[in-house]
Amino acid sequence: MASELQISTAVIKELSSIVGPANLFTGPEELVAYSYDATRTAALPAAVARPVTAREVSQILLLANRRRFPVIPRGAGTGMSGGSVPVRGGLVLSFERMNRILEIDERNRMAVVEPGVITGDLQREVEARGLFYPPDPASQQFCTLGGNIAECAGGLRAVKYGVTRDYVLGLEVVLPTGEIIETGSRTLKSVAGYDLTRLIVGSEGTLGVVTRIILRLLPRPESVETLSAFFPHIRDAGLAVAKISAGPIRPRALELIDSGAIRAVETYLKQDVSRGAGAMVLLEVDGSPQATASEAGALERVCREAGAVSVTRAADKSEQDRIWKLRRSISPALYTIKPRKINEDIVVPPARVPDILAEVQDIARRHGLLIVCFGHAGDGNIHTNILLEEAERPQAEEAVKEIFAAVLRMQGSISGEHGIGITKAPFLPLETGEQALEVMRKIKRALDPNNILNPGKIFLNAE
Amino acid sequence: MASELQISTAVIKELSSIVGPANLFTGPEELVAYSYDATRTAALPAAVARPVTAREVSQILLLANRRRFPVIPRGAGTGMSGGSVPVRGGLVLSFERMNRILEIDERNRMAVVEPGVITGDLQREVEARGLFYPPDPASQQFCTLGGNIAECAGGLRAVKYGVTRDYVLGLEVVLPTGEIIETGSRTLKSVAGYDLTRLIVGSEGTLGVVTRIILRLLPRPESVETLSAFFPHIRDAGLAVAKISAGPIRPRALELIDSGAIRAVETYLKQDVSRGAGAMVLLEVDGSPQATASEAGALERVCREAGAVSVTRAADKSEQDRIWKLRRSISPALYTIKPRKINEDIVVPPARVPDILAEVQDIARRHGLLIVCFGHAGDGNIHTNILLEEAERPQAEEAVKEIFAAVLRMQGSISGEHGIGITKAPFLPLETGEQALEVMRKIKRALDPNNILNPGKIFLNAE
Repeated sequence: MASELQISTAVIKELSSIVGPANLFTGPEELVAYSYDATRTAALPAAVARPVTAREVSQILLLANRRRFPVIPRGAGTGMSGGSVPVRGGLVLSFERMNRILEIDERNRMAVVEPGVITGDLQREVEARGLFYPPDPASQQFCTLGGNIAECAGGLRAVKYGVTRDYVLGLEVVLPTGEIIETGSRTLKSVAGYDLTRLIVGSEGTLGVVTRIILRLLPRPESVETLSAFFPHIRDAGLAVAKISAGPIRPRALELIDSGAIRAVETYLKQDVSRGAGAMVLLEVDGSPQATASEAGALERVCREAGAVSVTRAADKSEQDRIWKLRRSISPALYTIKPRKINEDIVVPPARVPDILAEVQDIARRHGLLIVCFGHAGDGNIHTNILLEEAERPQAEEAVKEIFAAVLRMQGSISGEHGIGITKAPFLPLETGEQALEVMRKIKRALDPNNILNPGKIFLNAE
Repeated sequence: MASELQISTAVIKELSSIVGPANLFTGPEELVAYSYDATRTAALPAAVARPVTAREVSQILLLANRRRFPVIPRGAGTGMSGGSVPVRGGLVLSFERMNRILEIDERNRMAVVEPGVITGDLQREVEARGLFYPPDPASQQFCTLGGNIAECAGGLRAVKYGVTRDYVLGLEVVLPTGEIIETGSRTLKSVAGYDLTRLIVGSEGTLGVVTRIILRLLPRPESVETLSAFFPHIRDAGLAVAKISAGPIRPRALELIDSGAIRAVETYLKQDVSRGAGAMVLLEVDGSPQATASEAGALERVCREAGAVSVTRAADKSEQDRIWKLRRSISPALYTIKPRKINEDIVVPPARVPDILAEVQDIARRHGLLIVCFGHAGDGNIHTNILLEEAERPQAEEAVKEIFAAVLRMQGSISGEHGIGITKAPFLPLETGEQALEVMRKIKRALDPNNILNPGKIFLNAE
């Protein structure tokens, strides 16, 4: 097991000689800057290194195995489950210097990138060439592709286009024991041995450090239509979502926003957008101009039939942006209501969305809590946000347990796209069962016998 | 290591008490019936069991670990790389009795099936309900979903819809050591711990025995248009494929057939379909009737611009069937030319399709061999078939090595959809490198310490 007694001066010297003194931080301000993620959990590392090649990463991991200190890979720290928080101290590996788009291969529709590339930067670059990288986590303007791979990030467009996993063709990975391997290939299909690529994707930086990524791209859709619909009650909105999900049209976004989130956004933006509606649905379709026009019309009809009091179809890019601004303002807006929030990204079979929404509000009522729900309802992935004062934490933690229990009763999953990290580790056995968890631990032990890489994540106890 | 000395009378008795005497075969005819797959490689098992529950499979694996005999899961024996051939003897587990479609959940668009369900049977059932299961290996009327999962089967529609992996949401798996686990969930997204589902998919029956499968379904496309185009030379056809692959339309099938395959089919069907053409391209688009009509028109134009001498657009279902009959007749037709064939399913980055086709013909010329190429050119996955007399085997084996070397130079993969099994095991290290292979072996050893489950596959030596 990696020692929590941290890193000696001798080791600091060795690390410094690997990455260069300018890329090794040990000062208190820098340690604080790399201590947290979006969960607002924090723990200080002993040092931060900014490597620039797979070879440097490999040397660091060899050293870490020799000297037994934890190594924690970190993208931009936008994670929602504590995955990059150095809970046992050790060395944070930050990838801000490995941020090159190495290649955009237009003929094969592939991109080769380093892990520190910002997701939004790649999207802009490929879109300028008529291509498209679909995964779009809400933090896309800040988060890194390496972090997206660690967590298997989803996003708004997952309902049609799938998640990060579906776009990763190959990886260069430094193993916990320092070897550098390549997984996958530059092909759209490959079944050459076990699927190590997809084992690494979503492994939350516990099985290997990704140092190069081959991504699949799609042709950029010609046309996009965006709609917003307001409903008197969340039930009506939930039914509209279920009806659309079961219909022939596959929207590229299908978001549901409850009244609590609408009110928060209205307060935050200082405007009345909903005229007191009880729920909002955001929809987006893409494809040829004819197809999107006819699909947008059909979706508008479904919303009206389900009881929408108003449906807006964006006439141009600026109206689209206005609609999406409402959605993107939810997270910051929620902090204006209560000082703390606990954000869970539960997921249920799509037809159970109305049931889980009702159940969550029951749980909120029973505990006297304010729980706001919004998110990717099209694929059953709802962000439930418990808004709280610190004094309400015991009830909130009780509510989280009850929400997870309800999700699992409905054959859902406790995490659709945020990962387990530290915040959900206590609950993971409820979903997987002890024996499947033991399979995961066996894999972890086989690849990382000294538990060097991101210890304390996913498993409460990997040793 | 599992003994090759096989199964004692005492063990046969125990096996018989687990599955019942009617479901345990030891007679020579039955052993021969379960000894081979589509590679025409064969090895006799010591016995064949036909379990009907996960519990029976678990009891068998516990016994196998106690008594140290190999257990080889087998679907319909249509595999193309020897994955289900009992090369070290032992017990074949055949899933023909676990062939129930347990549930088709129309609201959530999911199906729950047992591993012995024939792929084509599921497709018919879901299509009758307006749903769609895209993976379509050529053997879909015979192969089983359990076998598809073991090999991560692809098929004609993979170019648009992806492969088996992309439709598996969750599994019930009996581990090599007998524990029964569930992976994944009934949701479209989940990141709860390591992705065990996708580790099992494509692991060729070496890491676990799949006993129940949750599959994702799509809405059935409203309309399908099918085209065939004949070209004077394979170069022209290759260019048409590359142009379509890089264009905005995403056909659901994009198949290339070379002159050798055309001649074989014409001889086999006793009709002249091509008027001496040098290559054929098959195309299929699906979607709304308007979209498919306009896309079919655009694809026809691309083919003509690339030099097609004739393009046929099927007017109805019977014309579609006639076009696909040509494609489906290739495999049986090839056996009419020479008594043996070696079929490889190489895959290259899509833009390299013309290069690999040229290189394969160079290799054929150099060795004086007849090599016929056809397949899923849209995703770069070409079936290269060396047709030979037994006396030509040494040259053919040399040619295979050269083809694989060319594929790897082009950053391709030696197997797009058939798996490694026994036939490609000697070549796998060339693609993965020794260290990535060792990662796979570590996983195998961690989950199957006695090397009970399907030994001798993927790795030349797992111990």
